[in-house]
Amino acid sequence: MDNFEFRNPTKIVFGRSTEHQVGAEVAPYSRKILLHFGGGSIKQSGLYDRVTASLRAAGVEWVELGGVKPNPRLSLVHEGVKLCKQHQLGLVLAVGGGSTIDSAKAIAMGAMIEGDVWDFYLGKGAPQAALPIGTVLTIPAAGSEASTGTVITKEEGWLKRAVNSDLLYPRFSILNPELTFTLPPFQVACGAVDIMAHLMERYFTNVRDVAFTDRLIEATLKTIIAQAPKVLANPQDYDARAEFMWAGTIAHNNLLNTGRVGDWASHDIEHEISGIYDVAHGAGLAVVFPAWMKHVLHHDLDRFVQWAVRVWNVELDVFNPEAVAREGIARMEAFFRSLGIGTTLASLGIHDDRIAEMADKCTDGNARTVGNFVKLDRDAVAAILRLAQ
Amino acid sequence: MDNFEFRNPTKIVFGRSTEHQVGAEVAPYSRKILLHFGGGSIKQSGLYDRVTASLRAAGVEWVELGGVKPNPRLSLVHEGVKLCKQHQLGLVLAVGGGSTIDSAKAIAMGAMIEGDVWDFYLGKGAPQAALPIGTVLTIPAAGSEASTGTVITKEEGWLKRAVNSDLLYPRFSILNPELTFTLPPFQVACGAVDIMAHLMERYFTNVRDVAFTDRLIEATLKTIIAQAPKVLANPQDYDARAEFMWAGTIAHNNLLNTGRVGDWASHDIEHEISGIYDVAHGAGLAVVFPAWMKHVLHHDLDRFVQWAVRVWNVELDVFNPEAVAREGIARMEAFFRSLGIGTTLASLGIHDDRIAEMADKCTDGNARTVGNFVKLDRDAVAAILRLAQ
Repeated sequence: MDNFEFRNPTKIVFGRSTEHQVGAEVAPYSRKILLHFGGGSIKQSGLYDRVTASLRAAGVEWVELGGVKPNPRLSLVHEGVKLCKQHQLGLVLAVGGGSTIDSAKAIAMGAMIEGDVWDFYLGKGAPQAALPIGTVLTIPAAGSEASTGTVITKEEGWLKRAVNSDLLYPRFSILNPELTFTLPPFQVACGAVDIMAHLMERYFTNVRDVAFTDRLIEATLKTIIAQAPKVLANPQDYDARAEFMWAGTIAHNNLLNTGRVGDWASHDIEHEISGIYDVAHGAGLAVVFPAWMKHVLHHDLDRFVQWAVRVWNVELDVFNPEAVAREGIARMEAFFRSLGIGTTLASLGIHDDRIAEMADKCTDGNARTVGNFVKLDRDAVAAILRLAQ
Repeated sequence: MDNFEFRNPTKIVFGRSTEHQVGAEVAPYSRKILLHFGGGSIKQSGLYDRVTASLRAAGVEWVELGGVKPNPRLSLVHEGVKLCKQHQLGLVLAVGGGSTIDSAKAIAMGAMIEGDVWDFYLGKGAPQAALPIGTVLTIPAAGSEASTGTVITKEEGWLKRAVNSDLLYPRFSILNPELTFTLPPFQVACGAVDIMAHLMERYFTNVRDVAFTDRLIEATLKTIIAQAPKVLANPQDYDARAEFMWAGTIAHNNLLNTGRVGDWASHDIEHEISGIYDVAHGAGLAVVFPAWMKHVLHHDLDRFVQWAVRVWNVELDVFNPEAVAREGIARMEAFFRSLGIGTTLASLGIHDDRIAEMADKCTDGNARTVGNFVKLDRDAVAAILRLAQ
């Protein structure tokens, strides 16, 4: 096990009707905030009215910025930064899913600097300050509600890049599973894949003697595998929604990578797919992950066997470990398909071949490798994308 | 699943040689602190020298208070409070195990009030402030390094009582598994039982639909069951020590009771045993827990079956669930004994019969019940203690 530091300060307020507490959670930080959200769904559902009533009751004023899209855009971040500076706003409240929260985090950093926040996404320096961030989560998937990360897409060149900083842990996140009852099934399925991907990125590590976090990751994977079908079968199943939502947060709050180094190649590769084709992140991951596994299988067959046996209940056959591992991958693909998610590029409607371009962008023209479990160069990324066709 | 709030702000600094960071962790809070510890073991091991060198290098002065004993005493807490007030100390640094940390927490509360801190332990009011607390953990067991709790014994009447408050989360806890290499085997075994008890107190709940936290608890139990024998067989096994230590913290940092209500009767009953006989807390729990389980088995046989199958690998026999549950209990008892821990009062050397007295004190003369899974009155507590003879 590696040395590590772990501190996750995000206050989780979880359960039925908890969105009514948002004003009380915001007020200690600021009385004048940016209210950030996506499309019209929070207005149709009544969530907008409940949130603003709670803010009003707590004496909190707000400036609004809606319009966040999946794969959130830098141009809207710039608008948010301008509003924060112009109105001297003291907190960014994201009401929505991971895209809205990631956009809010970008705004929170941008509001504290003179220059362009995109520089942080290019790795030019690290943020030294950020406005406080709060969230009311509506989509369990990205884990951004209790994470250090933000991923933003710059429209010019469709570059999708990430920043991680402890400054970006939200001060609070409100998680009411009832708010997820009306999610379209496809979004639930993409969320399930995204959560599982966060877990598997952490699981496949070269660090030895990480048995405890292995088991915690397996427990969380099994939870998503058990609950996602229940959620799809009965969208109003509060308890299945609750298990799913809480597991999604724990999957990405950095507890499960304590003492270990995750891989993250599949996320990097997927960012190139969704950067070009604007597919849902979870749908892209369902395509990349099986292909990545087939490519790296022999790097540590034992780890794949453990995963297949413990997570997918494949019967252990010590004489045929590769067959056990491959059966695990096959069960994962079948599970994704059972959720209504394809596992090939073709299933995403991607029939043209821009594999060379994506592999090139992903590795900055072969100037860097991606992934830690196995370091992948441009050719390896291209090979994985071909396996995914 | 119940609604819940969860926020654990303790910064964990985990791994080899991390005690050298203690000065840097303390300095942001205070330059003049109380250094609190137990007997001479930290001086013999050299830990005292390393900690004080780190404090000195960070420009931190300290006043010392050693002498914490297992089942930490109120009289020493009073001394610590006096020192904090007299020297205007700004942080209490506990270097030791759960007893030292619990004592430090009591001092941290007492330093902020005029009256007697024992009042909080009697339930007269809740603390409104506490000095910051930091820890360098040397015994993985109590979980106090990242918990809200403190248990103190008042010598007069041997009353053992607890306080829980979010104010008592340590600001930081330094966990170096190497510091545990020299623990006596009996203390390791007691620690294992204590950690498992924290997990099982949370596991046995009446709240339905808590499948995710069930699995997280099972994962942590299996970790202790796997690692404790390795630690005893090879005290210098860093990775086994590390898994054991981190699992011990997670067992009690409140993550694993999110959305559920734990039982805690066994802890209450054990406090009466160790209050009178001054036995090690873990040794007492190894006696109480099996008896408690046999007493409450039929309250929710399904839950005991799940626990037996998933944690103890008992083969499921759907036609004989009670036999499955009882086999789980038998395997737990055998496991405790394999660690060198007895599972009866007689094995603790307790041959006199003060059961009526303990049952009476535990329930305040039958004025209150203990436990949530099953509410136990005085007679029920006495029945459990008799089962434990």
